[in-house]
Amino acid sequence: MENTTSTKMIYEGKTINLRVDDVELTNGNMSKREIVEHPGAVAILAITAQNDVFFVRQFRKPIEKELLEIPAGKLDEKEDPAACAVRELGEEVGMKPGTLRQIAFYYSSPGFASEKLYIYLATDLEPVDVAKPEDEILEPLKIPFNEALAMARQGRIEDGKTLIALLLAADLMEA
Amino acid sequence: MENTTSTKMIYEGKTINLRVDDVELTNGNMSKREIVEHPGAVAILAITAQNDVFFVRQFRKPIEKELLEIPAGKLDEKEDPAACAVRELGEEVGMKPGTLRQIAFYYSSPGFASEKLYIYLATDLEPVDVAKPEDEILEPLKIPFNEALAMARQGRIEDGKTLIALLLAADLMEA
Repeated sequence: MENTTSTKMIYEGKTINLRVDDVELTNGNMSKREIVEHPGAVAILAITAQNDVFFVRQFRKPIEKELLEIPAGKLDEKEDPAACAVRELGEEVGMKPGTLRQIAFYYSSPGFASEKLYIYLATDLEPVDVAKPEDEILEPLKIPFNEALAMARQGRIEDGKTLIALLLAADLMEA
Repeated sequence: MENTTSTKMIYEGKTINLRVDDVELTNGNMSKREIVEHPGAVAILAITAQNDVFFVRQFRKPIEKELLEIPAGKLDEKEDPAACAVRELGEEVGMKPGTLRQIAFYYSSPGFASEKLYIYLATDLEPVDVAKPEDEILEPLKIPFNEALAMARQGRIEDGKTLIALLLAADLMEA
Protein backbone atom coordinates (compact mmCIF):
# COMPACT_ATOMS: atom_id res chain seq x y z
CA MET A 1 0.00 0.00 0.00
CA GLU A 2 1.04 3.58 -0.64
CA ASN A 3 -1.00 6.30 1.03
CA THR A 4 -1.59 9.32 -1.16
CA THR A 5 -0.88 12.50 0.78
CA SER A 6 -1.48 14.85 -2.15
CA THR A 7 -2.36 14.55 -5.81
CA LYS A 8 -1.96 17.00 -8.68
CA MET A 9 -3.45 16.66 -12.17
CA ILE A 10 -0.84 17.90 -14.65
CA TYR A 11 -2.59 17.26 -17.97
CA GLU A 12 -5.96 15.96 -19.12
CA GLY A 13 -5.84 14.85 -22.75
CA LYS A 14 -7.65 13.00 -25.51
CA THR A 15 -6.12 9.60 -24.74
CA ILE A 16 -4.23 9.95 -21.48
CA ASN A 17 -4.04 12.08 -18.34
CA LEU A 18 -0.93 12.71 -16.28
CA ARG A 19 -1.00 13.21 -12.53
CA VAL A 20 1.64 13.30 -9.83
CA ASP A 21 0.92 11.82 -6.41
CA ASP A 22 2.91 12.29 -3.22
CA VAL A 23 2.82 9.00 -1.35
CA GLU A 24 3.81 7.63 2.01
CA LEU A 25 5.39 4.18 1.88
CA THR A 26 4.85 1.44 4.45
CA ASN A 27 8.37 2.12 5.81
CA GLY A 28 7.39 5.74 6.52
CA ASN A 29 9.42 7.21 3.63
CA MET A 30 7.82 9.72 1.26
CA SER A 31 8.02 9.41 -2.50
CA LYS A 32 6.53 10.86 -5.70
CA ARG A 33 4.65 8.80 -8.29
CA GLU A 34 4.20 10.05 -11.84
CA ILE A 35 1.10 8.33 -13.14
CA VAL A 36 -0.32 8.10 -16.66
CA GLU A 37 -4.05 7.44 -16.57
CA HIS A 38 -5.17 5.38 -19.55
CA PRO A 39 -8.68 4.04 -20.35
CA GLY A 40 -7.46 0.50 -21.13
CA ALA A 41 -7.32 -1.26 -24.46
CA VAL A 42 -8.04 -4.47 -26.32
CA ALA A 43 -6.02 -6.46 -28.87
CA ILE A 44 -7.37 -9.17 -31.12
CA LEU A 45 -5.61 -12.24 -32.49
CA ALA A 46 -7.90 -13.00 -35.42
CA ILE A 47 -7.21 -16.34 -37.10
CA THR A 48 -8.80 -17.42 -40.38
CA ALA A 49 -9.95 -20.94 -41.24
CA GLN A 50 -6.67 -21.24 -43.20
CA ASN A 51 -4.68 -20.42 -40.00
CA ASP A 52 -3.66 -16.97 -41.19
CA VAL A 53 -3.41 -14.17 -38.62
CA PHE A 54 -4.49 -10.59 -39.35
CA PHE A 55 -1.87 -7.92 -38.67
CA VAL A 56 -1.60 -4.19 -39.20
CA ARG A 57 1.50 -2.16 -39.93
CA GLN A 58 1.20 1.17 -38.21
CA PHE A 59 3.51 4.13 -37.66
CA ARG A 60 3.89 4.74 -33.93
CA LYS A 61 4.85 8.31 -33.16
CA PRO A 62 6.25 7.70 -29.63
CA ILE A 63 8.95 5.43 -31.06
CA GLU A 64 9.16 7.09 -34.51
CA LYS A 65 8.84 3.82 -36.33
CA GLU A 66 6.41 1.41 -37.91
CA LEU A 67 5.42 -1.69 -35.96
CA LEU A 68 3.80 -4.95 -36.97
CA GLU A 69 0.92 -5.47 -34.54
CA ILE A 70 -2.32 -7.34 -34.18
CA PRO A 71 -5.45 -5.14 -34.41
CA ALA A 72 -6.02 -3.17 -31.21
CA GLY A 73 -7.57 -0.06 -29.80
CA LYS A 74 -8.53 1.91 -26.74
CA LEU A 75 -11.72 1.38 -24.80
CA ASP A 76 -14.30 4.12 -25.24
CA GLU A 77 -15.80 5.41 -21.99
CA LYS A 78 -17.61 2.55 -20.21
CA GLU A 79 -17.22 0.35 -23.30
CA ASP A 80 -17.36 -3.40 -22.77
CA PRO A 81 -13.96 -4.88 -23.77
CA ALA A 82 -15.51 -7.61 -25.96
CA ALA A 83 -17.64 -5.01 -27.79
CA CYS A 84 -14.50 -2.91 -28.26
CA ALA A 85 -12.70 -5.93 -29.73
CA VAL A 86 -15.49 -6.48 -32.27
CA ARG A 87 -15.48 -2.76 -33.16
CA GLU A 88 -11.70 -2.54 -33.59
CA LEU A 89 -11.48 -5.72 -35.65
CA GLY A 90 -14.11 -4.30 -38.00
CA GLU A 91 -12.44 -0.89 -38.25
CA GLU A 92 -8.90 -2.15 -38.71
CA VAL A 93 -9.18 -5.25 -40.89
CA GLY A 94 -12.88 -5.39 -41.92
CA MET A 95 -13.66 -8.65 -40.14
CA LYS A 96 -16.36 -9.74 -37.71
CA PRO A 97 -15.71 -12.68 -35.35
CA GLY A 98 -18.23 -15.54 -35.06
CA THR A 99 -16.35 -16.66 -31.93
CA LEU A 100 -14.50 -14.40 -29.49
CA ARG A 101 -12.60 -15.68 -26.45
CA GLN A 102 -10.56 -13.69 -23.93
CA ILE A 103 -7.11 -15.26 -23.59
CA ALA A 104 -5.25 -12.66 -21.49
CA PHE A 105 -5.62 -9.72 -19.17
CA TYR A 106 -2.52 -7.79 -18.15
CA TYR A 107 -0.99 -4.42 -17.34
CA SER A 108 1.38 -3.12 -20.01
CA SER A 109 3.52 -0.75 -17.89
CA PRO A 110 2.36 -0.87 -14.27
CA GLY A 111 5.34 1.18 -13.08
CA PHE A 112 4.02 4.41 -14.62
CA ALA A 113 0.70 3.75 -16.41
CA SER A 114 -2.71 2.34 -15.49
CA GLU A 115 -3.24 0.78 -18.93
CA LYS A 116 -4.83 -2.68 -18.79
CA LEU A 117 -4.97 -4.88 -21.86
CA TYR A 118 -7.57 -7.50 -22.76
CA ILE A 119 -6.46 -9.93 -25.46
CA TYR A 120 -9.01 -11.88 -27.47
CA LEU A 121 -8.78 -14.83 -29.82
CA ALA A 122 -11.21 -14.26 -32.71
CA THR A 123 -12.22 -17.06 -35.06
CA ASP A 124 -15.07 -17.90 -37.48
CA LEU A 125 -14.36 -14.59 -39.21
CA GLU A 126 -16.67 -12.97 -41.74
CA PRO A 127 -16.08 -9.81 -43.78
CA VAL A 128 -17.87 -6.70 -42.52
CA ASP A 129 -18.01 -3.20 -43.99
CA VAL A 130 -17.04 -0.58 -41.38
CA ALA A 131 -15.76 2.99 -41.77
CA LYS A 132 -12.14 3.53 -40.68
CA PRO A 133 -11.18 6.30 -38.21
CA GLU A 134 -9.57 9.23 -40.04
CA ASP A 135 -6.50 9.65 -37.85
CA GLU A 136 -5.27 6.06 -38.10
CA ILE A 137 -3.35 4.94 -41.13
CA LEU A 138 -3.00 1.19 -41.18
CA GLU A 139 -1.80 -1.36 -43.64
CA PRO A 140 -3.62 -4.65 -42.98
CA LEU A 141 -1.97 -7.94 -43.91
CA LYS A 142 -2.19 -11.67 -43.20
CA ILE A 143 0.65 -13.94 -42.05
CA PRO A 144 0.38 -17.72 -41.52
CA PHE A 145 0.14 -18.45 -37.77
CA ASN A 146 3.23 -20.68 -37.66
CA GLU A 147 5.30 -18.04 -39.42
CA ALA A 148 4.08 -15.31 -37.05
CA LEU A 149 4.86 -17.52 -34.05
CA ALA A 150 8.37 -18.17 -35.35
CA MET A 151 8.83 -14.40 -35.70
CA ALA A 152 7.73 -13.93 -32.07
CA ARG A 153 10.14 -16.60 -30.83
CA GLN A 154 13.02 -15.20 -32.91
CA GLY A 155 12.69 -11.63 -31.63
CA ARG A 156 11.14 -10.24 -34.82
CA ILE A 157 7.92 -9.03 -33.12
CA GLU A 158 8.57 -5.83 -31.14
CA ASP A 159 5.05 -5.08 -29.92
CA GLY A 160 4.26 -6.37 -26.42
CA LYS A 161 0.57 -7.25 -26.89
CA THR A 162 1.32 -9.05 -30.17
CA LEU A 163 4.07 -11.12 -28.52
CA ILE A 164 1.79 -12.15 -25.64
CA ALA A 165 -1.11 -13.00 -27.97
CA LEU A 166 1.00 -15.20 -30.26
CA LEU A 167 2.84 -17.01 -27.46
CA LEU A 168 -0.36 -17.73 -25.51
CA ALA A 169 -2.24 -18.86 -28.62
CA ALA A 170 0.59 -21.27 -29.45
CA ASP A 171 -0.01 -23.00 -26.13
CA LEU A 172 -3.77 -23.13 -26.72
CA MET A 173 -3.37 -24.53 -30.22
CA GLU A 174 -0.79 -27.12 -29.18
CA ALA A 175 -2.86 -28.18 -26.13
CA MET B 1 5.55 8.53 -41.22
CA GLU B 2 3.96 11.40 -39.34
CA ASN B 3 5.49 14.83 -39.82
CA THR B 4 5.67 16.86 -36.63
CA THR B 5 4.38 20.38 -37.25
CA SER B 6 4.70 21.52 -33.64
CA THR B 7 5.73 20.02 -30.34
CA LYS B 8 5.04 21.12 -26.79
CA MET B 9 6.67 19.75 -23.62
CA ILE B 10 3.98 19.55 -20.94
CA TYR B 11 5.91 17.98 -18.06
CA GLU B 12 9.48 16.91 -17.36
CA GLY B 13 9.64 14.51 -14.44
CA LYS B 14 11.81 12.11 -12.49
CA THR B 15 10.84 9.03 -14.53
CA ILE B 16 8.81 10.27 -17.48
CA ASN B 17 8.19 13.34 -19.61
CA LEU B 18 4.95 14.19 -21.37
CA ARG B 19 4.83 16.06 -24.66
CA VAL B 20 2.11 16.74 -27.20
CA ASP B 21 2.94 16.77 -30.91
CA ASP B 22 0.80 18.07 -33.75
CA VAL B 23 1.36 15.78 -36.71
CA GLU B 24 0.50 15.63 -40.37
CA LEU B 25 -0.50 12.17 -41.57
CA THR B 26 0.39 10.71 -44.98
CA ASN B 27 -3.23 11.31 -46.10
CA GLY B 28 -2.85 15.03 -45.37
CA ASN B 29 -5.01 14.97 -42.20
CA MET B 30 -3.77 16.61 -39.03
CA SER B 31 -3.80 14.91 -35.63
CA LYS B 32 -2.46 15.28 -32.09
CA ARG B 33 -0.19 12.72 -30.41
CA GLU B 34 0.16 12.61 -26.63
CA ILE B 35 3.54 11.04 -25.97
CA VAL B 36 5.09 9.75 -22.77
CA GLU B 37 8.88 9.78 -22.96
CA HIS B 38 10.40 6.94 -20.94
CA PRO B 39 14.11 5.99 -20.60
CA GLY B 40 13.48 2.27 -21.22
CA ALA B 41 13.74 -0.62 -18.81
CA VAL B 42 15.01 -4.13 -18.26
CA ALA B 43 13.42 -7.22 -16.71
CA ILE B 44 15.26 -10.33 -15.60
CA LEU B 45 14.06 -13.92 -15.52
CA ALA B 46 16.52 -15.33 -13.02
CA ILE B 47 16.45 -19.12 -12.73
CA THR B 48 18.29 -21.08 -10.05
CA ALA B 49 20.01 -24.45 -10.54
CA GLN B 50 16.88 -25.97 -8.94
CA ASN B 51 14.68 -24.36 -11.67
CA ASP B 52 13.17 -21.81 -9.30
CA VAL B 53 12.39 -18.33 -10.63
CA PHE B 54 12.91 -15.16 -8.60
CA PHE B 55 9.87 -12.88 -8.30
CA VAL B 56 9.03 -9.71 -6.43
CA ARG B 57 5.68 -8.62 -5.08
CA GLN B 58 5.37 -4.88 -5.42
CA PHE B 59 2.61 -2.35 -4.89
CA ARG B 60 2.00 -0.46 -8.15
CA LYS B 61 0.46 2.94 -7.54
CA PRO B 62 -0.92 3.48 -11.09
CA ILE B 63 -3.19 0.43 -10.71
CA GLU B 64 -3.55 0.63 -6.90
CA LYS B 65 -2.65 -3.00 -6.40
CA GLU B 66 0.18 -5.40 -5.77
CA LEU B 67 1.59 -7.33 -8.71
CA LEU B 68 3.74 -10.43 -8.94
CA GLU B 69 6.59 -9.54 -11.30
CA ILE B 70 10.09 -10.60 -12.23
CA PRO B 71 12.83 -8.18 -11.09
CA ALA B 72 12.96 -5.08 -13.30
CA GLY B 73 13.96 -1.47 -13.39
CA LYS B 74 14.49 1.63 -15.46
CA LEU B 75 17.66 2.38 -17.36
CA ASP B 76 19.77 5.13 -15.86
CA GLU B 77 20.97 7.75 -18.33
CA LYS B 78 23.15 6.10 -21.00
CA GLU B 79 23.23 2.88 -18.96
CA ASP B 80 23.93 -0.32 -20.86
CA PRO B 81 20.85 -2.58 -20.60
CA ALA B 82 22.88 -5.65 -19.55
CA ALA B 83 24.62 -3.63 -16.81
CA CYS B 84 21.21 -2.38 -15.68
CA ALA B 85 19.96 -5.98 -15.49
CA VAL B 86 22.88 -6.98 -13.26
CA ARG B 87 22.30 -3.91 -11.05
CA GLU B 88 18.55 -4.47 -10.69
CA LEU B 89 18.91 -8.20 -9.98
CA GLY B 90 21.34 -7.36 -7.20
CA GLU B 91 19.17 -4.61 -5.72
CA GLU B 92 15.88 -6.50 -5.88
CA VAL B 93 16.74 -10.09 -5.01
CA GLY B 94 20.42 -10.02 -4.01
CA MET B 95 21.68 -12.20 -6.84
CA LYS B 96 24.44 -11.87 -9.43
CA PRO B 97 24.19 -13.77 -12.73
CA GLY B 98 27.11 -15.86 -14.01
CA THR B 99 25.34 -16.02 -17.38
CA LEU B 100 23.08 -13.34 -18.85
CA ARG B 101 21.31 -13.70 -22.20
CA GLN B 102 18.90 -11.25 -23.85
CA ILE B 103 15.73 -13.10 -24.86
CA ALA B 104 13.42 -10.25 -25.89
CA PHE B 105 13.23 -6.63 -26.94
CA TYR B 106 9.84 -4.99 -27.25
CA TYR B 107 7.77 -1.83 -26.79
CA SER B 108 5.29 -2.03 -23.90
CA SER B 109 2.75 0.58 -25.05
CA PRO B 110 3.79 2.02 -28.41
CA GLY B 111 0.49 3.86 -28.85
CA PHE B 112 1.33 6.43 -26.17
CA ALA B 113 4.76 5.69 -24.65
CA SER B 114 8.32 5.29 -25.92
CA GLU B 115 9.20 2.67 -23.29
CA LYS B 116 11.31 -0.17 -24.65
CA LEU B 117 11.91 -3.31 -22.64
CA TYR B 118 14.92 -5.62 -22.70
CA ILE B 119 14.31 -9.03 -21.14
CA TYR B 120 17.19 -11.16 -19.93
CA LEU B 121 17.51 -14.76 -18.86
CA ALA B 122 19.90 -14.93 -15.91
CA THR B 123 21.43 -18.21 -14.74
CA ASP B 124 24.45 -19.44 -12.73
CA LEU B 125 23.29 -17.18 -9.91
CA GLU B 126 25.38 -16.27 -6.89
CA PRO B 127 24.37 -14.23 -3.83
CA VAL B 128 25.59 -10.64 -3.78
CA ASP B 129 25.21 -7.95 -1.13
CA VAL B 130 23.76 -4.74 -2.57
CA ALA B 131 21.93 -1.83 -0.92
CA LYS B 132 18.25 -1.51 -1.83
CA PRO B 133 16.77 1.80 -3.10
CA GLU B 134 14.75 3.52 -0.37
CA ASP B 135 11.58 4.23 -2.34
CA GLU B 136 10.98 0.66 -3.50
CA ILE B 137 9.35 -1.80 -1.16
CA LEU B 138 9.61 -5.30 -2.53
CA GLU B 139 8.90 -8.75 -1.25
CA PRO B 140 11.22 -11.22 -3.02
CA LEU B 141 10.14 -14.84 -3.45
CA LYS B 142 10.93 -17.95 -5.50
CA ILE B 143 8.46 -20.04 -7.51
CA PRO B 144 9.31 -23.26 -9.40
CA PHE B 145 9.55 -22.49 -13.15
CA ASN B 146 6.85 -24.98 -14.15
CA GLU B 147 4.42 -23.54 -11.62
CA ALA B 148 5.13 -19.98 -12.76
CA LEU B 149 4.63 -21.00 -16.38
CA ALA B 150 1.30 -22.63 -15.52
CA MET B 151 0.27 -19.39 -13.80
CA ALA B 152 1.15 -17.43 -16.97
CA ARG B 153 -0.83 -19.79 -19.18
CA GLN B 154 -3.84 -19.75 -16.82
CA GLY B 155 -4.12 -15.96 -16.65
CA ARG B 156 -2.70 -15.64 -13.13
CA ILE B 157 0.21 -13.38 -14.16
CA GLU B 158 -1.00 -9.83 -14.82
CA ASP B 159 2.30 -8.12 -15.56
CA GLY B 160 3.18 -7.87 -19.27
CA LYS B 161 6.96 -8.26 -19.05
CA THR B 162 6.64 -11.25 -16.70
CA LEU B 163 4.20 -12.96 -19.09
CA ILE B 164 6.53 -12.46 -22.06
CA ALA B 165 9.59 -13.65 -20.14
CA LEU B 166 7.94 -16.85 -18.91
CA LEU B 167 6.33 -17.75 -22.23
CA LEU B 168 9.54 -17.17 -24.21
CA ALA B 169 11.68 -19.06 -21.70
CA ALA B 170 9.30 -22.02 -21.92
CA ASP B 171 10.03 -22.27 -25.63
CA LEU B 172 13.78 -22.01 -25.02
CA MET B 173 13.74 -24.66 -22.30
CA GLU B 174 11.59 -27.06 -24.32
CA ALA B 175 13.68 -26.53 -27.47
